[in-house]
Amino acid sequence: MKTVRTATLAHGKQSQIMFADDLKDLSVHLGNYGRSVLWVFDTNTAKLFKQLPPVAVVLESGESSKNFSSLERILSTAVEEGLGRDGRIIGFGGGVVCDMAAFAASIYMRGCLLTLVPTTLLCMVDASVGGKAAIDFKGLKNMVGSFYPASEVLICMDTLRTLSDKEFLNGLAEVIKHALLSQDEELYKVLITKKNEILARDADTLIKLVQLSLDVKRWYIEQDPTETLGIRQMLNLGHTFGHALESSSHFGLYGHGACVAWGTCRALEAGSVLGVTEKAYAMGATKLFKSFGYDIDYRIGRGDWIEFREHLSKDKKKEAGKVLFVLMEKQGCAVLKPLEMQLIQHLVIAKPIF
Amino acid sequence: MKTVRTATLAHGKQSQIMFADDLKDLSVHLGNYGRSVLWVFDTNTAKLFKQLPPVAVVLESGESSKNFSSLERILSTAVEEGLGRDGRIIGFGGGVVCDMAAFAASIYMRGCLLTLVPTTLLCMVDASVGGKAAIDFKGLKNMVGSFYPASEVLICMDTLRTLSDKEFLNGLAEVIKHALLSQDEELYKVLITKKNEILARDADTLIKLVQLSLDVKRWYIEQDPTETLGIRQMLNLGHTFGHALESSSHFGLYGHGACVAWGTCRALEAGSVLGVTEKAYAMGATKLFKSFGYDIDYRIGRGDWIEFREHLSKDKKKEAGKVLFVLMEKQGCAVLKPLEMQLIQHLVIAKPIF
Repeated sequence: MKTVRTATLAHGKQSQIMFADDLKDLSVHLGNYGRSVLWVFDTNTAKLFKQLPPVAVVLESGESSKNFSSLERILSTAVEEGLGRDGRIIGFGGGVVCDMAAFAASIYMRGCLLTLVPTTLLCMVDASVGGKAAIDFKGLKNMVGSFYPASEVLICMDTLRTLSDKEFLNGLAEVIKHALLSQDEELYKVLITKKNEILARDADTLIKLVQLSLDVKRWYIEQDPTETLGIRQMLNLGHTFGHALESSSHFGLYGHGACVAWGTCRALEAGSVLGVTEKAYAMGATKLFKSFGYDIDYRIGRGDWIEFREHLSKDKKKEAGKVLFVLMEKQGCAVLKPLEMQLIQHLVIAKPIF
Repeated sequence: MKTVRTATLAHGKQSQIMFADDLKDLSVHLGNYGRSVLWVFDTNTAKLFKQLPPVAVVLESGESSKNFSSLERILSTAVEEGLGRDGRIIGFGGGVVCDMAAFAASIYMRGCLLTLVPTTLLCMVDASVGGKAAIDFKGLKNMVGSFYPASEVLICMDTLRTLSDKEFLNGLAEVIKHALLSQDEELYKVLITKKNEILARDADTLIKLVQLSLDVKRWYIEQDPTETLGIRQMLNLGHTFGHALESSSHFGLYGHGACVAWGTCRALEAGSVLGVTEKAYAMGATKLFKSFGYDIDYRIGRGDWIEFREHLSKDKKKEAGKVLFVLMEKQGCAVLKPLEMQLIQHLVIAKPIF
């Protein structure tokens, strides 16, 4: 187990990001925590264990578990098992499991210890690092939550082996988003030159990809841990359009990453139309998404517009009541701007056939 | 409206503590917040308004409202009304209302603005300042919550006029606790010399009492905002015994302050028995509590011991599984110590009649 990155996050807390050599290395480290530990799995990651640890909560896999009822299940188990404030909650799974474990840890006795073991590419490069935890509420994504960085994030590439292609692409979309936001072009170049190795899930290439991706994320969040300075918000590139699509398609018809890929391309288009984004840059980035097979040409039906607009208006990035979108200027440079509703409609709705 | 104290609390956030001249002064200040505001009342404080503000949640008064269901009611209303991350939740009431408003504000969109208007003496000197918010869970007090200081705490002595004597004494117990923990004897002396003025609720005396009390609280919390250094925990004097009594009597048979008064006297006794507390000091402090009419000689029945011990064991102040008690050495000096179960039993149980 190697500590390869230390990120200083919300409230000055530090997250150690550690890479395990293999599953055995991972389990030795986890075993060292001792007894005062509560594990959170979902029905997928629970299967990875022949025998579950004594104190464990297994959530139904999927976004629908990101709710108050799952939260109460974890907290109840913590109380029943007499977990102390110096006890530890371990989230072992994808974004839903890590979000639930982190949110529960942040409020159990006003904060206990937290370790996250992300088992999807999406969670490795996104949810597990950065200290954001949340549940969905009233049909809206991540409406209720907290900032609570894990003290340790343990990454083991072996856990990616059983990931479906759809899940893998979900994560890759966030990696591409990070490549656009990066202050240098290294990650962008790896994505172009190592496409085949990435899709074949070559371990060394993936480690490189995850580390570079986390470096970008860290660059933004260390400057603005609780998203109050307008810097961290740039990581929401593609998420305003993306979340609205994800919400209107009832969480899961399209995966989070696929929606972010779609949303990023809509933001690139919007930027091009407004003269904010360099046209050549927008085209190159769109091509990169396409090369990995994302359905970025998808458009919503006219009948879905009202619901889509409704979800857009609930976005958390607001100023004076207007939703703000992250638009790219060029590599590594993004700005926050409101968009006219007419332009949004033009970008997301299927053109009428006659 | 005068800002009389600024406290730097959890995560470097500042709370402005402001005293209003009268209800009119208070309402002018509250009116200036504009529209993006959600109010939280309880059935008592809602009565103080001829007409409630347009966006308001009214909780049933009492400890039983400190639960997930009230939390969800506040959050639902916030979503329905489209409150933004730059919106404000105002808690107008006692400890329960302020705790619920603060906990909701801390997790709504991962944190929105918060103003607290404490309307009980207890809440003025305790819950409203310091950034601790929590709900009860599984029958245990304050098991789930967060650290989230209000940006403004507005105190208006006029709101104390309708307080019952029992409620008033609930708050006074925390004031006396602060007097013991103070680095000087000013507050202690006011309590002895101004007893009649205090019980008659003379406004000037009460302002003095609240300000001195908050100075003590601030001295402890500014050094240790999230209670990780063993300093802020001293403010829990009387609370380990007190919470166990409050929990076993099902929250409310005895008020919080009455339980804290009782618990502080048990801690003074424990310290005397162990030679930790100066005997003369313990006697003086016990006499001070008695002079205000607290039932500090109360003992639990033998049959209630198991439940009491169970609640004690759930206390959050634990080290290596052992519950820690705050014991006084002398004026302003406290220490954390585990106590033998036999001694605790001896201190809290009614002596057998034969």
